[in-house]
Amino acid sequence: MKIDYDVVIVGAGPAGITAAIYLKRAKINCLVIEKDTPGGAIAKTSIVENYPGVEKIKGADLAMRFYNQIKDLQVPYEYDEVTEIIDKKDYKIIKTKKREITSKAVILCPGKTPKNLEKENSDKLIGKGISFCAVCDGSLYKNEFVSVVGGGSSALEEALYLSGICKKVYVLNRSELLRGDKTLVDRVAKKKNIEILYNTEVEKFNIENDHLGSITIKTNEEVKQLNAKACFIFIGYIPDTNFLKTLDILDEKGYIIKHEGCRTSIKYIYAAGDVIKKESYQIVHATSEGAQAAISCIKDLSMGD
Amino acid sequence: MKIDYDVVIVGAGPAGITAAIYLKRAKINCLVIEKDTPGGAIAKTSIVENYPGVEKIKGADLAMRFYNQIKDLQVPYEYDEVTEIIDKKDYKIIKTKKREITSKAVILCPGKTPKNLEKENSDKLIGKGISFCAVCDGSLYKNEFVSVVGGGSSALEEALYLSGICKKVYVLNRSELLRGDKTLVDRVAKKKNIEILYNTEVEKFNIENDHLGSITIKTNEEVKQLNAKACFIFIGYIPDTNFLKTLDILDEKGYIIKHEGCRTSIKYIYAAGDVIKKESYQIVHATSEGAQAAISCIKDLSMGD
Repeated sequence: MKIDYDVVIVGAGPAGITAAIYLKRAKINCLVIEKDTPGGAIAKTSIVENYPGVEKIKGADLAMRFYNQIKDLQVPYEYDEVTEIIDKKDYKIIKTKKREITSKAVILCPGKTPKNLEKENSDKLIGKGISFCAVCDGSLYKNEFVSVVGGGSSALEEALYLSGICKKVYVLNRSELLRGDKTLVDRVAKKKNIEILYNTEVEKFNIENDHLGSITIKTNEEVKQLNAKACFIFIGYIPDTNFLKTLDILDEKGYIIKHEGCRTSIKYIYAAGDVIKKESYQIVHATSEGAQAAISCIKDLSMGD
Repeated sequence: MKIDYDVVIVGAGPAGITAAIYLKRAKINCLVIEKDTPGGAIAKTSIVENYPGVEKIKGADLAMRFYNQIKDLQVPYEYDEVTEIIDKKDYKIIKTKKREITSKAVILCPGKTPKNLEKENSDKLIGKGISFCAVCDGSLYKNEFVSVVGGGSSALEEALYLSGICKKVYVLNRSELLRGDKTLVDRVAKKKNIEILYNTEVEKFNIENDHLGSITIKTNEEVKQLNAKACFIFIGYIPDTNFLKTLDILDEKGYIIKHEGCRTSIKYIYAAGDVIKKESYQIVHATSEGAQAAISCIKDLSMGD
C-alpha cells in the first residue's frame, strides 16, 4: 500500500495552518487541502484587532500572512474539496473532487459557516457592517448604534458584550419570547442601552458608502428604518462536516467531538478550530488547537515506529 | 472602598498580553504588572518560527511586538513585582514592592522558570545553544548533533522529538536508570540516532563564535568532549508563584490549578499561560488561555452589574 503523505490537513484556516507549521518543523510529510480561499473565517472578517503579535490588520491580509508562512515552509498545498474520508485503521483514504489520497493520519480543520439572513444586501455587507462575532468586530463600533439578530443565548451574550462598547444595542427577535438562558435574559433586561424589539424581522439592509447604513425592519406589520451601523447575526452555524458523515465522530449538530489532545474517537484522526463544539470561537483558540492536534499526531505517529 | 482597576493582570508574557488586549477591547479598565522584561519566556527564546501569523522572528523582537500592541491600545503598564494577593471576596488587594492596588478581579500569568544547570557558561548560552524547549528550537539544529539533559519523561519526549530532526541526540543522564515512562524508554531504545550516556554529568559548556560549540562531560570519572551544538535541558521548572502561597489555588508543585474557562477556585481570580499545569507549553496555548481568562472575566464581571 503506497501512502502518499504522513498527514493530510483538511482546511487552511488558523487551525490547519498552525498544524501544518508544527508538523513541517517536526519534518513530518504533510499536505494541506482547502476548498476556498486560505485563512478560513479570518478571510471574511473586516478588521482583526485581537490577534496578539499582529497589530490591527485587515482580515484578508492576516489570512495571507498565515498562508504565506506555510508557503515559505514549502508545505504542499492543494486547492480541492474533500468529499469523503475512509478509515482503513492503518491508513486513511481522502477522497477529493479531483482524486484519492492516502495518509497515515488526518487533521480536520474545516471550520463552520455562520448562517446569514437571506435578505437584500445581506451577502454584500459581510465584513462591512454585517458580522458574526461581537468579540471580533464590536470595538469597531464604539459609541455607535448597532443591532443583534437572534434571541438565543449566544445572541444575548453578544448583545451584553456589545452593550459595554456601543451606545445602543437593538436586539431583533422574531418571536414574542427570548429563547436564551433565564440568567442572560435577566442581565439583558437590566442593561439600559439594550432594547429588545419583539416580533421583529429584517426586511432589507441599506447600504451607505459601501457599508451598512441602516436596516429596514418589520415589527407587528409596521415597516420602519432602524439606525444601526452594524448588524451582528446569531441565528446559528453550520459546521462544514458533510464529508465526515460516514465517520462516527460528529455530535447531533454536526460538530466534531474532541477528546484529549485534540484527538477524535478514531485513531490518527484529529480535529481543531471552529469545527469543534466549544465555548468560544477565537483565532487564538484555533491556533492553540491546531498546535495541539499536531503535537498529539507527532507523538502518536512516533509510537508506531 | 476605592477600587483602582476592574482587573489587574500579573505578568506580561503572551498570556497576560492577550488577556489585556481582550479586556481593553471590551472597555474594561485593567492594569498589567510585570517584574521583568515584557514577553515572558519568548524574550529569552532565540528564534520563534512556530507562531502563526508572524514569520521567523527573534524571540526578543516578537516580545516587543506583543508589548507594543498593548502600548498602542494604551493599556496601563507598570514595572513592579507583586509580593502578595489578598482575596477580600468583593475585591482583591494586590501588594507589590512599591504599593498596594485594589481590583475587582485578577488574571494571573506569571509563568514558570526552567531550571538551568549551574555550570560554567550555562547562563550565558541561554538562547545560544542552551534551550528549554525542543518543539520551539529543535528545527534550528536540523541534521546536527545535539544533547538532552535529563532522564524523566519530558526529557525523553523531547529527545524523541529531536530524533526526527537532528542527526544524533545524546541523552545525558546522571544515574544508571532513566526515570521516564516505560513506553517512552522503549521508544527511545528503538531510535538508532538516540544514544543514552548513563552516569553522565555536564562539567562545562564551551563557547564557539558566541554559541555553544561543545560540552565537557564526565562519565564514570572519565572527562571528555561531546560534540553537540545544542543542549536541551529538562530538569524541571519552577512556577513563579511564591507570591500566591497564601491563596489556596496551587498544586503541590506550585502550579495553578485551572478550572473551566481558565477560572481558579477563587471567584474573580483567573489563570493563563505557563503557570498552569498542562500537557504542552506553547505560545499559542498561552495566548488562547489569556483570551479565555479575559472572556470568562468579562462574563463574570457583567453578571455582577
